[in-house]
Amino acid sequence: MQPDYSKLQFDRQGNLRHFLSIKGIGIELISQLLEDAEKYLTAPGTLAPRSKSLAGRTIGNLFFEPSTRTRASFDLAGRRLGADVLNLDVNTSSRKKGESILDTIHTLQAMQVDIMVVRDASDGVPAYIARNVDDHVSVLNAGESDVSHPTQGLLDLMTIRQHNNDFKNMVVAIVGDIQHSRVAMSTAEALQTMGIGELRLISPAALSPTSDRFPGAYVFDNLAKGLKDADVIMALRIQRERIGNIEGVPNIDEYYANYGISHDSLEYAKPDAIVMHPGPMNRGIEIEGSIADGPRSVITKQVTNGVAIRMAVLDRIGQMMNER
Amino acid sequence: MQPDYSKLQFDRQGNLRHFLSIKGIGIELISQLLEDAEKYLTAPGTLAPRSKSLAGRTIGNLFFEPSTRTRASFDLAGRRLGADVLNLDVNTSSRKKGESILDTIHTLQAMQVDIMVVRDASDGVPAYIARNVDDHVSVLNAGESDVSHPTQGLLDLMTIRQHNNDFKNMVVAIVGDIQHSRVAMSTAEALQTMGIGELRLISPAALSPTSDRFPGAYVFDNLAKGLKDADVIMALRIQRERIGNIEGVPNIDEYYANYGISHDSLEYAKPDAIVMHPGPMNRGIEIEGSIADGPRSVITKQVTNGVAIRMAVLDRIGQMMNER
Amino acid sequence: MQPDYSKLQFDRQGNLRHFLSIKGIGIELISQLLEDAEKYLTAPGTLAPRSKSLAGRTIGNLFFEPSTRTRASFDLAGRRLGADVLNLDVNTSSRKKGESILDTIHTLQAMQVDIMVVRDASDGVPAYIARNVDDHVSVLNAGESDVSHPTQGLLDLMTIRQHNNDFKNMVVAIVGDIQHSRVAMSTAEALQTMGIGELRLISPAALSPTSDRFPGAYVFDNLAKGLKDADVIMALRIQRERIGNIEGVPNIDEYYANYGISHDSLEYAKPDAIVMHPGPMNRGIEIEGSIADGPRSVITKQVTNGVAIRMAVLDRIGQMMNER
Repeated sequence: MQPDYSKLQFDRQGNLRHFLSIKGIGIELISQLLEDAEKYLTAPGTLAPRSKSLAGRTIGNLFFEPSTRTRASFDLAGRRLGADVLNLDVNTSSRKKGESILDTIHTLQAMQVDIMVVRDASDGVPAYIARNVDDHVSVLNAGESDVSHPTQGLLDLMTIRQHNNDFKNMVVAIVGDIQHSRVAMSTAEALQTMGIGELRLISPAALSPTSDRFPGAYVFDNLAKGLKDADVIMALRIQRERIGNIEGVPNIDEYYANYGISHDSLEYAKPDAIVMHPGPMNRGIEIEGSIADGPRSVITKQVTNGVAIRMAVLDRIGQMMNER
Repeated sequence: MQPDYSKLQFDRQGNLRHFLSIKGIGIELISQLLEDAEKYLTAPGTLAPRSKSLAGRTIGNLFFEPSTRTRASFDLAGRRLGADVLNLDVNTSSRKKGESILDTIHTLQAMQVDIMVVRDASDGVPAYIARNVDDHVSVLNAGESDVSHPTQGLLDLMTIRQHNNDFKNMVVAIVGDIQHSRVAMSTAEALQTMGIGELRLISPAALSPTSDRFPGAYVFDNLAKGLKDADVIMALRIQRERIGNIEGVPNIDEYYANYGISHDSLEYAKPDAIVMHPGPMNRGIEIEGSIADGPRSVITKQVTNGVAIRMAVLDRIGQMMNER
Repeated sequence: MQPDYSKLQFDRQGNLRHFLSIKGIGIELISQLLEDAEKYLTAPGTLAPRSKSLAGRTIGNLFFEPSTRTRASFDLAGRRLGADVLNLDVNTSSRKKGESILDTIHTLQAMQVDIMVVRDASDGVPAYIARNVDDHVSVLNAGESDVSHPTQGLLDLMTIRQHNNDFKNMVVAIVGDIQHSRVAMSTAEALQTMGIGELRLISPAALSPTSDRFPGAYVFDNLAKGLKDADVIMALRIQRERIGNIEGVPNIDEYYANYGISHDSLEYAKPDAIVMHPGPMNRGIEIEGSIADGPRSVITKQVTNGVAIRMAVLDRIGQMMNER
């Protein structure tokens, strides 16, 4: 289970300073961030929403694990708030030269990087960085091992709430490789904070979560049962290399037949259920292409909400910095 | 032969929306774009020309094939018009993860990317993307397989016109690997649209174009004959790996002796003929270094015109967007 | 020994045009640049300093050798002065395609790149470029083989001066792979220009400099003797692959025992001596981690000063351009 970062995430005045985990953020702040993010939605084709709350600030995108979408999302969010964004990849990063993470972040803060957006394959790296930066630097978790991806949790929550805000009477079913999914972890935490009626986790037994990771959730290995009367179906990306290499996850065809979200599987859920996916999708494995592109899919909405949520979080941190 | 994208490229009001091919653009719009581009030329050392027509817009540079120059050219053109430019390389792109092109472009448009600049090694990809984006998104072809590179066609036309605008009485000779050259295709289309007097294509027989690709052009395998009285000589880049591996293209020395643009070969052309090359050059293979750097070379002018042409095209699309 | 670029670096009016080497810059201009750089220091957590002297200008970061820190430092310095910065890596660069350096720089200046920041593994490349660019283009050396890294020299000088400005009575000891260090070269030149009291170079005999590279410096192979009463200790990064492969540089443990900057070795120096390192550090090889993080370390100050020095140099060049 993830540690509780409640205290680490806030400054002495109770303002959000680091965003490391949904845990400890609380229903009030989550609701405010969702409200703020809604303001960053504009009609497609109109100018993307902008503000100046990060004007003069520098964001360092420190991606120790490759990413196209999440990095682009944070990059655009930062620039649309007026920040300078410095992109540092694992490929060009100093880790290659054997420099420690701390030396890298001390270097960045010495260059007056105000906000570090960190993705890392290892557990605890964002919090480790947050504990070691100077007082005036903020750290955002952009994906941490298989434990946390908090802005993803918020954007999923935002997308679900746009469909239905009656969380107490809602059934959300997350389907796929639950065991290795930071998306599932953060989305589950976000939903639990909102008092979700029923959270279901559906996966082959070999990929079901260890018992303590999702307190209060119901675990299924049968899609039909797990999707029954669901309001929300969220398919997870499965790493192709896992299929066939783990006992109980025999091959792609069988995985798709048993756990892929298809027209057939939609029948189990509520008639107006929405379908979500954090992307990038493996079409024909965890989801049927026509479902991904169909009327019940909100997958591109998730992407749009992702930029808006990141703007809301960055904006709040920028305001906190400007008031200091 | 390339499909006709005449209709796809314009919106219902007849404004340029996508720029996929020179074909179907028409002499009037081409002339306007050249005029617009001339305004984006300033004296070297003065501030580069700028405008705000893309302020608040986001351009995605989606290069599925590596490029330094063309990407830099589009990048600077976009930024000098006030846009945010997001560079996405093949190396870091989601294609690696098996995400389909459509998912990538749906993701980008969900992030409110307004203009996608696409380079791809496969035939038809820019048009495919243009057919599948939302109504408010524009697509620019930045190099497509061996069939099209329309901004290159326009910049070549602009460069030729700066030397001589009497297209009807002009002889232009393109020399090199005509068969695999998207540059030759687009420049030929641009010249034909302007009513070029005589277009000549000079190459070893093994690299001469298939019959339908350049309607109205004259094919030569002899440099002396092909260059006779030419006003414009355009050398193409040859892929080194092709030389020696294709029957009829025996080795570098022989290629240079027979098809390289040297002081000797200039003798065949008109005394004031200009020499062009799309870059990057293989000096000593398709062109003699001292010719590339000599008084008749307009090669760096082509680069300058390239930024100006891309600004003109982007500016027009930005104005169309702003008037919507 | 490095050639003298005194004349090449200045324009006819005597303004700094290229910054290739500390050599020939002179004490007056160095002092002015240090003064200017001090103005670009602001309290941590406040907005990074900015100006508009490069507004409308384009900087090309042309790194033919990989770098994270120096490139980020130049990138932020340029952007904080209002410039557009174009980052071109060796990975994506046209050198792969066999394009000559000159073609690359002619292309960049044709795109109205005003300032080229060049890092190259070969001797003389920045000066070669400076000799071949147009009159209105400036070239900055961002690291050249093992001979020169002039902005590093200035930032080291700035950092030393913040501790103690009595250069005439100062002892500075540089420790490590002196033979291959462009940092040592440029910092030594900067210190000699300021009239440093005593410059000492400490290294295993196998890594000591050839006789003509550091005129006036004292060479040591014993750390205790070399550090005696030093005011400043500068540890250099050692390439791990050199240790154990060069006779006289047997292994990491022995290197650290004999040349690593540890609590023990600090005892030899003055009680208030500062410890410097150009980064990235090999902790436990050339420097003990607790020294790097300790009260006598000014290593992160060097990073902050690095951005300020680059802003000062760029700002001066931008002003020269704007006055033309």
